[in-house]
Amino acid sequence: MKSRITISAIQQPCNADRQTNLEISIAKITEAANAGAELTVLPELHLESYFCQSEDNSKFQLAESIPGATTKILGDLAATLKIVIVATLFEKRTPGLYHNTAVVFDRDGSIAGKYRKMHIPDDPGYYEKYYFTPGDLGFTPIDTSIGRLGVLICWDQWFPEAARLMTLAGADMLIYPTAIGWDPLDSEEEKNRQLDAWLTIQRAHAIANGLPVLACNRTGFEPSPCGQSGIDFWGSSFIVGPQGEFLQRADSVESRLLLCDIAAGNSETTRQMWPYLRDRRIDSYHGLNRLFID
Amino acid sequence: MKSRITISAIQQPCNADRQTNLEISIAKITEAANAGAELTVLPELHLESYFCQSEDNSKFQLAESIPGATTKILGDLAATLKIVIVATLFEKRTPGLYHNTAVVFDRDGSIAGKYRKMHIPDDPGYYEKYYFTPGDLGFTPIDTSIGRLGVLICWDQWFPEAARLMTLAGADMLIYPTAIGWDPLDSEEEKNRQLDAWLTIQRAHAIANGLPVLACNRTGFEPSPCGQSGIDFWGSSFIVGPQGEFLQRADSVESRLLLCDIAAGNSETTRQMWPYLRDRRIDSYHGLNRLFID
Repeated sequence: MKSRITISAIQQPCNADRQTNLEISIAKITEAANAGAELTVLPELHLESYFCQSEDNSKFQLAESIPGATTKILGDLAATLKIVIVATLFEKRTPGLYHNTAVVFDRDGSIAGKYRKMHIPDDPGYYEKYYFTPGDLGFTPIDTSIGRLGVLICWDQWFPEAARLMTLAGADMLIYPTAIGWDPLDSEEEKNRQLDAWLTIQRAHAIANGLPVLACNRTGFEPSPCGQSGIDFWGSSFIVGPQGEFLQRADSVESRLLLCDIAAGNSETTRQMWPYLRDRRIDSYHGLNRLFID
Repeated sequence: MKSRITISAIQQPCNADRQTNLEISIAKITEAANAGAELTVLPELHLESYFCQSEDNSKFQLAESIPGATTKILGDLAATLKIVIVATLFEKRTPGLYHNTAVVFDRDGSIAGKYRKMHIPDDPGYYEKYYFTPGDLGFTPIDTSIGRLGVLICWDQWFPEAARLMTLAGADMLIYPTAIGWDPLDSEEEKNRQLDAWLTIQRAHAIANGLPVLACNRTGFEPSPCGQSGIDFWGSSFIVGPQGEFLQRADSVESRLLLCDIAAGNSETTRQMWPYLRDRRIDSYHGLNRLFID
């Protein structure tokens, strides 16, 4: 990683039509670059309303190839602005095989790499197993001109294994494009528990691995197309340092560009002070490759 | 696990002589049992001042066999009070082989099992690698009459692998006897970051695994015997539920008995709502058995 980089996250609603969502993203990426950002991250599947609220065969029409029309637009933008962009697309790999895929564009506009979401959720209102085949690219960070990016997507954020594997493969930071929100029918107490758990577990990935973590979520209410209660996306995007300390943090409703400097030396100092990587008991971790030890 | 149990943690200073420390522990265990606790946990190595502040050959005299004199006292107490006790002892296994070992006494006074600390720290003021051989019993929960206890010790608390392995082996809750504190020379800002990281990563183990977590730390300042700055043990013992929500929490200086009810059904409901165990990618986790993927 460069010794010091300026990173950013674009918290935005994504509940309009694709063209409007794309225009918002382009305007915000331009704003980020003009503010000095060398990297920017968009919310998960930022081109669309969160179509996984129902299982609807017609939504497969939204999928596109990588490279394709959208990667051409975003790649050109990355080259023009000289900024690394992390965007998540609904990938059509071949008819009948689709993924939830993050694409990383380098500052010259090339595709530096892609990550196919490995852990796929499925619960009421988030029917992702219907649409997305679990990724087959593993937990492989993506090399760019500014550093090695550990890009993961949303549901991955609940799995310490994913964060650790990206770290062991040399990631300089973890990046989580996200689409998560509240069920409006839940109590305020339950909503607070859920948001706090979401913040806590991702901050813990920073702590356990001694590196910065950036999470970028969408905002806004999106109604259910099938009579459920809809999703109130909770925003709260953040950037934390290698001790899990907040560097930048958005609230749950605002559209906002989060921007901050990250120094590579902070991770190294933190890992020397808190040498977890030194002490892992790899002789005794084989059970992690099992679902349950009966 | 029983459908509902009352658990407790004894936050106490441990910087007096062994007999005084033991008397404090016994009084507090009795208080816990009288208050209805069916399980209680003492801070790590509660019989001694934290002798690992220096590498001192004479301290090996403090080590004792398991079973031995102390387990007899605590076992008898467990039987008298009908309470499960988790205590950490400096174990002498054979001359030249010592461990940092948690012993679990069941309500009939028997030793239900023991756990030998797997991850051993070593940094200025915490010279544990000098004293303790890393455990060879693996991450195996201990069955008791009230449930299956995932007992880990202090430094283990920074490793998501340990929490996950205990969960996969069927632990009903995680328990961390601890001795951790501040370097008095650190800034208030750094102290806050460290304490917050400690709380955050353990709450994250609850969240990732959908089970309660109890951490029991000592309090009080213990001077360094070798001219370093000593350790200001930060207390802050806590019990959280399966979403990482605080149920009980001590401050950094008080001697206190933390007591609360845990319902087994909460873990089951939480895991059905947040089904991480369903979605782990065990086909892609082999890298966790490596120190680094070069």
